[in-house]
Amino acid sequence: MRSFASDNNSGVHPSVMEAINQANKDHAIGYGDDPWSKEAVETIHRVIGNEVDPYFTFNGTGANVTALRLLTRPYQTIFCAETAHIYVDECSAPASQTGCHIRPIATTNGNGKLTPELIAPHIHGVGDQHHAQPRAIYISQCTEMGTVYTLEELKELRAFADKHQLYILMDGARISNACVALNCSLREMIINTGMDLVVLGGTKNGLMVGECLLVINDAFKQEAKFMRKNTAQLASKMRFLSCQFTAFLQDNLWKKCAANANQLAKRLCDGLKQIDGVKMTQPLDSNQLFLTMPRPVIDKLLEDYFFYFWNEEKHEIRFVTSWDTTEEDVDQLLSSIKKNS
Amino acid sequence: MRSFASDNNSGVHPSVMEAINQANKDHAIGYGDDPWSKEAVETIHRVIGNEVDPYFTFNGTGANVTALRLLTRPYQTIFCAETAHIYVDECSAPASQTGCHIRPIATTNGNGKLTPELIAPHIHGVGDQHHAQPRAIYISQCTEMGTVYTLEELKELRAFADKHQLYILMDGARISNACVALNCSLREMIINTGMDLVVLGGTKNGLMVGECLLVINDAFKQEAKFMRKNTAQLASKMRFLSCQFTAFLQDNLWKKCAANANQLAKRLCDGLKQIDGVKMTQPLDSNQLFLTMPRPVIDKLLEDYFFYFWNEEKHEIRFVTSWDTTEEDVDQLLSSIKKNS
Amino acid sequence: MRSFASDNNSGVHPSVMEAINQANKDHAIGYGDDPWSKEAVETIHRVIGNEVDPYFTFNGTGANVTALRLLTRPYQTIFCAETAHIYVDECSAPASQTGCHIRPIATTNGNGKLTPELIAPHIHGVGDQHHAQPRAIYISQCTEMGTVYTLEELKELRAFADKHQLYILMDGARISNACVALNCSLREMIINTGMDLVVLGGTKNGLMVGECLLVINDAFKQEAKFMRKNTAQLASKMRFLSCQFTAFLQDNLWKKCAANANQLAKRLCDGLKQIDGVKMTQPLDSNQLFLTMPRPVIDKLLEDYFFYFWNEEKHEIRFVTSWDTTEEDVDQLLSSIKKNS
Amino acid sequence: MRSFASDNNSGVHPSVMEAINQANKDHAIGYGDDPWSKEAVETIHRVIGNEVDPYFTFNGTGANVTALRLLTRPYQTIFCAETAHIYVDECSAPASQTGCHIRPIATTNGNGKLTPELIAPHIHGVGDQHHAQPRAIYISQCTEMGTVYTLEELKELRAFADKHQLYILMDGARISNACVALNCSLREMIINTGMDLVVLGGTKNGLMVGECLLVINDAFKQEAKFMRKNTAQLASKMRFLSCQFTAFLQDNLWKKCAANANQLAKRLCDGLKQIDGVKMTQPLDSNQLFLTMPRPVIDKLLEDYFFYFWNEEKHEIRFVTSWDTTEEDVDQLLSSIKKNS
Repeated sequence: MRSFASDNNSGVHPSVMEAINQANKDHAIGYGDDPWSKEAVETIHRVIGNEVDPYFTFNGTGANVTALRLLTRPYQTIFCAETAHIYVDECSAPASQTGCHIRPIATTNGNGKLTPELIAPHIHGVGDQHHAQPRAIYISQCTEMGTVYTLEELKELRAFADKHQLYILMDGARISNACVALNCSLREMIINTGMDLVVLGGTKNGLMVGECLLVINDAFKQEAKFMRKNTAQLASKMRFLSCQFTAFLQDNLWKKCAANANQLAKRLCDGLKQIDGVKMTQPLDSNQLFLTMPRPVIDKLLEDYFFYFWNEEKHEIRFVTSWDTTEEDVDQLLSSIKKNS
Repeated sequence: MRSFASDNNSGVHPSVMEAINQANKDHAIGYGDDPWSKEAVETIHRVIGNEVDPYFTFNGTGANVTALRLLTRPYQTIFCAETAHIYVDECSAPASQTGCHIRPIATTNGNGKLTPELIAPHIHGVGDQHHAQPRAIYISQCTEMGTVYTLEELKELRAFADKHQLYILMDGARISNACVALNCSLREMIINTGMDLVVLGGTKNGLMVGECLLVINDAFKQEAKFMRKNTAQLASKMRFLSCQFTAFLQDNLWKKCAANANQLAKRLCDGLKQIDGVKMTQPLDSNQLFLTMPRPVIDKLLEDYFFYFWNEEKHEIRFVTSWDTTEEDVDQLLSSIKKNS
Repeated sequence: MRSFASDNNSGVHPSVMEAINQANKDHAIGYGDDPWSKEAVETIHRVIGNEVDPYFTFNGTGANVTALRLLTRPYQTIFCAETAHIYVDECSAPASQTGCHIRPIATTNGNGKLTPELIAPHIHGVGDQHHAQPRAIYISQCTEMGTVYTLEELKELRAFADKHQLYILMDGARISNACVALNCSLREMIINTGMDLVVLGGTKNGLMVGECLLVINDAFKQEAKFMRKNTAQLASKMRFLSCQFTAFLQDNLWKKCAANANQLAKRLCDGLKQIDGVKMTQPLDSNQLFLTMPRPVIDKLLEDYFFYFWNEEKHEIRFVTSWDTTEEDVDQLLSSIKKNS
Repeated sequence: MRSFASDNNSGVHPSVMEAINQANKDHAIGYGDDPWSKEAVETIHRVIGNEVDPYFTFNGTGANVTALRLLTRPYQTIFCAETAHIYVDECSAPASQTGCHIRPIATTNGNGKLTPELIAPHIHGVGDQHHAQPRAIYISQCTEMGTVYTLEELKELRAFADKHQLYILMDGARISNACVALNCSLREMIINTGMDLVVLGGTKNGLMVGECLLVINDAFKQEAKFMRKNTAQLASKMRFLSCQFTAFLQDNLWKKCAANANQLAKRLCDGLKQIDGVKMTQPLDSNQLFLTMPRPVIDKLLEDYFFYFWNEEKHEIRFVTSWDTTEEDVDQLLSSIKKNS
């Protein structure tokens, strides 16, 4: 039975698995100096742009930590939403490995998005030795609430960052879903909006293991490979990570996978809205759904499905659709809920 | 053409690749709570012992760093050979993430092995607040010089460590080759010798990606999962890491792979000794060979083969055989050298 | 002209200065093994209790950082008020040197005090490897808002901490003022309430340089001296730090100094309440006053006095009285304000 | 009885103590924005040069750590002598707070001095992501062996550093003694030789508490104040630190104090050479003497004097003279030794 707990509960897309199997021939020099890694880099350059230096890492936390360490010195501040993955879900790895002051900002708009207005009051004490100095903004695209920053919103953040000499890291664990939601290219999403560093997520959208840190701002290119190794994120048999990205970016696989997830999320959302007692708590932008149901219905559903509470006290749960979710999967989930309601 | 540069230049063993392909079905809960990971843990318990808590990590540096962070506090000392991987080859990751005083010890015996006699002079300043406090011994099995600690030597280190309240981490990136060399089981190697923590290497012996940190000493079990996550070494689609270890440990695959590498290293060594101008600089214990050749021969060979200098000034190079090295590969390398000599 | 900007604008109490001058005779072994340091330790034992291990440090940040490093491992959480000194005023030193997740909690009661009710919602994810694990509570006594935790409130925090296996660090930069406010002894304040670690503040109450970390919980005694040195807080000519504490604790000097500050704060508060346009924004518990005045009055006053804005947007400023503030000082300040109102 | 254990066993020079007492008047803004600190900065500018940015810190470890954190990123290497204070005597604080690879180099010349020839073999792996990247050279002036780098030797290190894009930190805990030994000014010692950062030592030469980090290279000026605070080395009542440096640098007090120490060390050395069984193990350059004596003589002497073993196995001990050592002190020590020989 397919899970709606997280898109990382899904397996590996057949094309990606095929690429991995194909990469398993002969010997290859380790640590990235191999034909598969070269091809992956070229593919990234072709799809996103030549100004991007890609660094493959094992996982999202590793990519985030490498990126944040590149951006900062220990006396500096990283701004993020109070729901941010780096603040809430990574067991303090970002704080441990940067030493920075991480400043969580309540997204009082309720949608998990940072805005210049929300960050501005926290830009203070600049130049004052008692206070950590503003340095970086971390955003997730899609956000942890499933919402998607519009290109316009990203550009506003960029202008704000420029004004205050800040750098922006976009954690794109679900960037594919965001691009599909906005009907834009990866280039439009990250180059045209002026991001400094971007984590190009793969694992949640059909890859086996691997994320890719894209270093766009030249200022951070020289140190990147050392910081990745120092963060223990350099793979020896690199070809098995990099080959996945070639498959991912070729023939728009990333987009097709995300489109499926988003479409099925829409179908699920439409179905849920028809059910008495179910209430969506966030607008549906991508492939994450937040909703409340009566607790007995939840408990009954938990007998058949594994999923996470977002806010147990409020009976708020989260569903996530995946690259391989089918209409039947959705309908079966809806029917289970209806049956118990 | 098969490489002799490193055993991480080899690919994935077919049985391991088969296991990965088999694991790619249905959805599975992330982060280790899945049937494949359960099976891998059970297999480790059966093969090595129930007292072992296994933590799968992405790579050796990640496993080493997680282990050293578990063992230490920042005011403490880690002893290692001056050739140690954690000191020389990990871009300061162990120092960065533990904050410890890393004390490299010259292995004046020339074989890369630490002994009680070598460590003893560095046990001083105990209880003195000015000096970092002795805490951990890091050893590599096999060592970076290709040598293998005997079980007796390991027990002597254990006794020494007990006397000084030290803990031992064995970096077993090539532990399979060491077991084959000593004709002993993994249990004899790590449980019977009293190791506290062991990195069970996989990548260099037929796996795609993944090492396994074995926590044996109860004192370090409670914190291990948090330290792994805090070190950014927790895989989301864990099944694809763990399933490899099941294949690795079943039917003695680990042993067969290492036996092949060791045997072919022997064949290569025997052949090299027949060649004028080639001089072995280390006894052959496992699958790493250290040797000198006239520089022109090396340069000529580099046109056909990629391999590493160990000490360029002395014309010392390293060859490593792999799980998939064949007699033909060895003979071809030997004939290339002969041709150029 | 005496400042009301901070109690660290004051000088050294004559008795403390006399002790320093007296300590300047002969040679003495460094790092604390001298008669003055022994006397200071004995004095602390006599005044507070034998269960206390004192560690003299240079400043409050150094003492806080040493304490927090003793209490924690990098995957753990430190709870504090969002106004906390360690979160706001120490340039990220506590995050940099512990690596911990620092969780600022809004003190919605408006008085800067943490309560079990405020902390409880943040105790979650216990045992879950994704989340930093609750470990320590940091409180300031007096708080950054000038308020004082009652002994009853401290005991409630202790009970809450015990229930959740948490440890409490009390930052007593102004602990003398708090004791005077509650009319209790240092022992009643820190031993009877069950604090684990306490920073006994000196600099803000008549000392030249020096704070004292009191380690009360046995669990943290063994590592303390190493952690202090590792935090670069060990003085070589220790006698000049320690002798100040002997003077401070003898003849209740600490209490007399704080009593003066608190009394003059009361006089100032009474006077301010008589002035049109002045509004106290916090109840007066100790020697810090928070108030608003029309901006033109503030600007005029700034021509004669240096002091800090607490919230510039709201025209909220802070006054602090010191061990050496006099009635004349207060009256002069009041008259300056009146003149400009 | 005056100690020969260390120059930090001495007290505070009367002129420095007078300055401290004089600074204890009125209120003053904290953290360095006070007249005494301004005067100290001006004095440093006048004596050493306007290009120097001074940062007062509490102690040598704090100054060293602040300096090394300014110079480095965690993936980089710090070279030092294997006897270096930062490697041996600071309880791992430099490693803990920089995260760097600290590479101790055996000074095979036996005099504790680094040279380009000694460092050169360790400059390797540049640009290779597996290896920590060369960044900083730490030297002590005087060295831990009491020897003094000549100005020429320093310039050679500078040229070597330039060639390899390295930066130099001079730990001048005993820089005064070195200047006196070389009969040069502070400016000649640190500006003309091209040092990047220098710790101007005070505590070992007549100050009560306080060192001063001199930032000479413009590249490190902007971050210095934040790094000092982040390292917990910012004093609140700064005037009591800074005023000592004014006294220290005025009227050549620093030079007079060091000259006395050096001269008395010479007298002591001359006397020791007359005693049978005493053997100097280092040439006398400054105020530290290293020597061997028969163990029974040492044991007898320890009944009257406290001093440190340098190498207990070899019966090697260290004597240090101070700013306040007198001819009588020296003669008394000599006579004690003779009596026991």
